[in-house]
Amino acid sequence: MFTCTGYAASDPTTPLAAFSFSRRDPGPGDVLIDILFCGVCHSDLHTARNDWGNTLYPCVPGHEIIGRVAAVGPDVTRFKVGDMVGVGCLVDSCRACESCREGFEQFCEEGWVGTYNSTDPFLGGPTFGGYSSHIVVPEAFVLRVPDNLDPAAAAPLLCAGITTYSPLRHWKAGPGRKVGVVGLGGLGHIAVKLAHAMGTHVVLFTTSVSKVADGHRLGADEVVLSTDQAELEKRQSSLDLIIDAVSAPHDINIYLGLLKRDGALVQVGLPDKPLSVGVFNLVLKRRNLAGSMIGGIAETQELLDFCGMHGITADIELIPIQKIEDAYACIVRSEVKYRFVIDMASLKTG
Amino acid sequence: MFTCTGYAASDPTTPLAAFSFSRRDPGPGDVLIDILFCGVCHSDLHTARNDWGNTLYPCVPGHEIIGRVAAVGPDVTRFKVGDMVGVGCLVDSCRACESCREGFEQFCEEGWVGTYNSTDPFLGGPTFGGYSSHIVVPEAFVLRVPDNLDPAAAAPLLCAGITTYSPLRHWKAGPGRKVGVVGLGGLGHIAVKLAHAMGTHVVLFTTSVSKVADGHRLGADEVVLSTDQAELEKRQSSLDLIIDAVSAPHDINIYLGLLKRDGALVQVGLPDKPLSVGVFNLVLKRRNLAGSMIGGIAETQELLDFCGMHGITADIELIPIQKIEDAYACIVRSEVKYRFVIDMASLKTG
Repeated sequence: MFTCTGYAASDPTTPLAAFSFSRRDPGPGDVLIDILFCGVCHSDLHTARNDWGNTLYPCVPGHEIIGRVAAVGPDVTRFKVGDMVGVGCLVDSCRACESCREGFEQFCEEGWVGTYNSTDPFLGGPTFGGYSSHIVVPEAFVLRVPDNLDPAAAAPLLCAGITTYSPLRHWKAGPGRKVGVVGLGGLGHIAVKLAHAMGTHVVLFTTSVSKVADGHRLGADEVVLSTDQAELEKRQSSLDLIIDAVSAPHDINIYLGLLKRDGALVQVGLPDKPLSVGVFNLVLKRRNLAGSMIGGIAETQELLDFCGMHGITADIELIPIQKIEDAYACIVRSEVKYRFVIDMASLKTG
Repeated sequence: MFTCTGYAASDPTTPLAAFSFSRRDPGPGDVLIDILFCGVCHSDLHTARNDWGNTLYPCVPGHEIIGRVAAVGPDVTRFKVGDMVGVGCLVDSCRACESCREGFEQFCEEGWVGTYNSTDPFLGGPTFGGYSSHIVVPEAFVLRVPDNLDPAAAAPLLCAGITTYSPLRHWKAGPGRKVGVVGLGGLGHIAVKLAHAMGTHVVLFTTSVSKVADGHRLGADEVVLSTDQAELEKRQSSLDLIIDAVSAPHDINIYLGLLKRDGALVQVGLPDKPLSVGVFNLVLKRRNLAGSMIGGIAETQELLDFCGMHGITADIELIPIQKIEDAYACIVRSEVKYRFVIDMASLKTG
């Protein structure tokens, strides 16, 4: 074992603070990563505060990790010291069940190992995430980061990126298709960029007049205020797919009505209250309401390669780790354009 | 025009009563049908009572029609006098929009003509349904009924049958797949028979202990009481598809949890209150909640041919038209096994 530094929540109400903890020494198949940047996901905040009632303390959040390989075990073949790599929401899974074998590690039937807030299979206690100096990850769960991407701005691809890329691919966004994106936040702004790069017609729905210009800049072909009944009415039954990235409770029925026959509304935000769904809205056009959760490891690599090819990263605000509580406060008020990323060098200087 | 006899609701509260009305003379492409039997669908009752707030009075319900061809127009090529034929929920559509051209007349973008309670494009006023002596229907909306099927018991195939057949086909029921059916009523009992005939493993969910034996008799491989938590728990993430045929408000989340990754719960019952849907239930296995509405004309013919091949009809209770209000009362109390069908000969003798 060796000692890492990081930031942790010790309980639901105390601000995150500096924290030292142990990680396992890299095994034969492991990659040791010096963490350079870590994106700040809304899930980090929910977990730090125990909003979902399942937090293991102390909690070191962070699952949008970019770093450089500092050491590799003797069995590692795909990475060498100095490589720029990423780690997302998963650091292991059973690798044997049907879902794992089919590349859906995020649906592992034995339960995957989350980058944070899972039980550490080696050391016991919670797994510790990316708000830290180093991480040790099995090679199979380490991702290559294209050289041409800014490493700080690439960090959010590991969660916000794959969470939107996976449903866009699964439900076949592309030329000739019309895709709606609901909500211009961390997930939504990447969804717009990705869908645009896939060659699909993108319609962004936002409640904020102030975000209309940004929506167009990010790649939306149309931006519609969700409160504008006339504009919504014009688009009835016109969309093939809607990615709904809103986590707050909201009325999805106004969006279901915008889907064509056989269209799908895919929820990637996670409202903590049940959604209210009018059955006629589904029945009248054989519409679908679905959910989607991050993506598998191979698919995440595919996303990173796609982003490398199209030069896509997130729009970020870089912060030192010492400002994490301020960042959380901004996230709660939806005042971030569009993702905070922690510069992990601040761990040493703070 | 010629005069038909039938039974009609004159307002939401008065019992249905004998009623005479005019139909158009058959045009060159029309088929005139002597109605022999008409199934009693829950929608008939909802419409007679104006439960959905859109009823045009006087209302002659009935869209599960079986009869014999009494005359054909000169352009009719597929039917001749004496043929046993069926008419379902639709008697016309625009036949030009994308949905119609693709065989989805039930999703006609210009608005299809319902067998009853639409505006009659020829005579104005409401279209009149199958609780009547005759009907005139364009050849394209008339269906062939296989000779080997009992005509009275075949009537419910025209609505209850196609409503369950269409989603079973679209979501690929068949060998190697496990399909759940929720609710053993008019729709559910046909869903069980059809799914069984497709070679799929069928799990029936019912709230009634009294229906367990019937569920097995109709073809279910397993029958589970929806109130039995332990039996539900055993079947978590085990089903590919669920056909939910319950019209009463009910908790669909217990069924969503039974779906495998990428599984779909398809609502064919029509609860008049919104469903409450837990998002995690969808997200954790990329599950789908969808709706489905009857089926297209070609698909309805495919269903009838499938039923002919497999000898499938509904389990029915034959009634004279004079007992229609008693039948409605039984439907409200779920006391029918499993579909009332009106013997239309009773119109003359009553």
